[in-house]
Amino acid sequence: MSLTISEIRQAAERIAPYILKTPLLRLPSLDKALGCEVYVKPECFQITGAFKLRGAMNKILTLTPEELARGIVTASSGNHGKAVAYAAHLLGVKATIILPHGAAQNKVDKIRHYGADIVWASLEDRFEVADRVCREKNAVMVAPFNDEQIMAGQGTAGLEILEDCPDLDALVVPVSGGGLIGGLSTAVKALSPRTKVYGAEPALLPRYSESLKAGRRVKVEAHHSVADGLVSLIPGEICFPVVAAHTDGFAAVSEDYVLKGWKRLVADGKVFGEPSGAITLGAVLEGLIPVKKTDKVCFFISGGSVSLEQLRLLDDVQL
Amino acid sequence: MSLTISEIRQAAERIAPYILKTPLLRLPSLDKALGCEVYVKPECFQITGAFKLRGAMNKILTLTPEELARGIVTASSGNHGKAVAYAAHLLGVKATIILPHGAAQNKVDKIRHYGADIVWASLEDRFEVADRVCREKNAVMVAPFNDEQIMAGQGTAGLEILEDCPDLDALVVPVSGGGLIGGLSTAVKALSPRTKVYGAEPALLPRYSESLKAGRRVKVEAHHSVADGLVSLIPGEICFPVVAAHTDGFAAVSEDYVLKGWKRLVADGKVFGEPSGAITLGAVLEGLIPVKKTDKVCFFISGGSVSLEQLRLLDDVQL
Repeated sequence: MSLTISEIRQAAERIAPYILKTPLLRLPSLDKALGCEVYVKPECFQITGAFKLRGAMNKILTLTPEELARGIVTASSGNHGKAVAYAAHLLGVKATIILPHGAAQNKVDKIRHYGADIVWASLEDRFEVADRVCREKNAVMVAPFNDEQIMAGQGTAGLEILEDCPDLDALVVPVSGGGLIGGLSTAVKALSPRTKVYGAEPALLPRYSESLKAGRRVKVEAHHSVADGLVSLIPGEICFPVVAAHTDGFAAVSEDYVLKGWKRLVADGKVFGEPSGAITLGAVLEGLIPVKKTDKVCFFISGGSVSLEQLRLLDDVQL
Repeated sequence: MSLTISEIRQAAERIAPYILKTPLLRLPSLDKALGCEVYVKPECFQITGAFKLRGAMNKILTLTPEELARGIVTASSGNHGKAVAYAAHLLGVKATIILPHGAAQNKVDKIRHYGADIVWASLEDRFEVADRVCREKNAVMVAPFNDEQIMAGQGTAGLEILEDCPDLDALVVPVSGGGLIGGLSTAVKALSPRTKVYGAEPALLPRYSESLKAGRRVKVEAHHSVADGLVSLIPGEICFPVVAAHTDGFAAVSEDYVLKGWKRLVADGKVFGEPSGAITLGAVLEGLIPVKKTDKVCFFISGGSVSLEQLRLLDDVQL
């Protein structure tokens, strides 16, 4: 485990010209329902629509000119692929994105729009396919989460959150492979050790809850969650020890409460983020994370990869 | 015409403990569709869900203890009523709100929640009814727009916008009676005379477009617009000369383009604001306001008084 606050600070400087410093939104309209002072970090307003640009840009900017000339490859369920395609386009680098069958059409269109090549694979095989394509093309892999420079890039959002709210009591983070929470928790614990950092993952895919209980990385069975960006089956090898060292707890959130959290975020909070981000609100609504009325709690909204049509899922959700 | 930047600065100081300084959101996802660098001032994140709290709070805080003891009355289609009810509740003042038949249920519930009394009236009669109730109760009127202290309060958002983006090229403002654009344009022109200020109103209710053309206040025929917060039939007497002096143009936006603007704001911009705010995007999409690709343009989003169910209106809207 070697990710440090200094690497995150360097990443922040490196990517500053290419990303937006999103604001920390105070949303008093959600205080009553969530039982705390609600803040959100709305990365749905980030360029390419998700926090993923931070990590992708940081990784690509640390490659050598020789590596860049060989082109880059990644496997991604969407937001990371979009970020890599955009970054590659911006820097004039050739990119190939391996996408799982069933990826949302709006994400696929954006990736095509940025001029990247797409290779399709099953959810389970996508990393193998990416490895093969990478070898065949002699290209450089830009992994979606299991990479220290990716984690450092994602962690830059943690610097911004604490700059805007130095006395934050807790941060709740959506979790898939662990790149985001690895970076954020490293940043937060270095700057404000008293601030709690919690992960929220689908109860259908409890890879971190299970792994932390077992004390080693556990692979869980594949399931479809409405939090459709949080698809990893096993924690990243590089991410896991970082996350284990810096987090204060994990919530395995039921599908019902992902939807309830999402409805609160959109209907009352007025932020049209993706369900994968709203899982953080679901975790608190389900009572899985302890918060007090006077606590300042930041809910990390991963992105906005969601269409108006998908809101139909909320029709029968009771708050 | 006597509203000054100094009154707006005083208002900002007065209301600071009671309102949120909302961020100026940069939304690059909307640049291509709108043909400029898009910023939004998202007052849907303001306390009580709309900019209206700024004016209401400023007005009420300038009343004498004797006036406060007599209670306050207002006529409002919703957001202003909610703001007055909240402010009165916070300061321990008795409030009566006159609402037009057909006001959105979520707004009515909030007003009740803050403990205000509600009196129903028709859209046309609401100001008369308010006057009568006010006389009967010997109370103080807190007008929704036609009041210098209300305008000064709304103008405080203009100070914030220019603080966050001093080189703003244009500001587009939703318009009903003219309290908001009166305050904002006074602030903007005092601090940055080169910044253009445009009004956007429903083509079905073109009270400012018609009045400015005629050189006097003109009353237009009542119609229902999807921009359901912009219901005034005639410019406010106090607002009109202020608006005439400080604005650079008005757009009378078709219902189609209000909906297109709203769809862009929610689906691509990820901000679930109300149609009355999204009319500003509609004005530019309809080609009624000149913008250039390199222009920094701020779209003022008045509030978030809108339910998920209302999004059904967007089902058949083509972008």
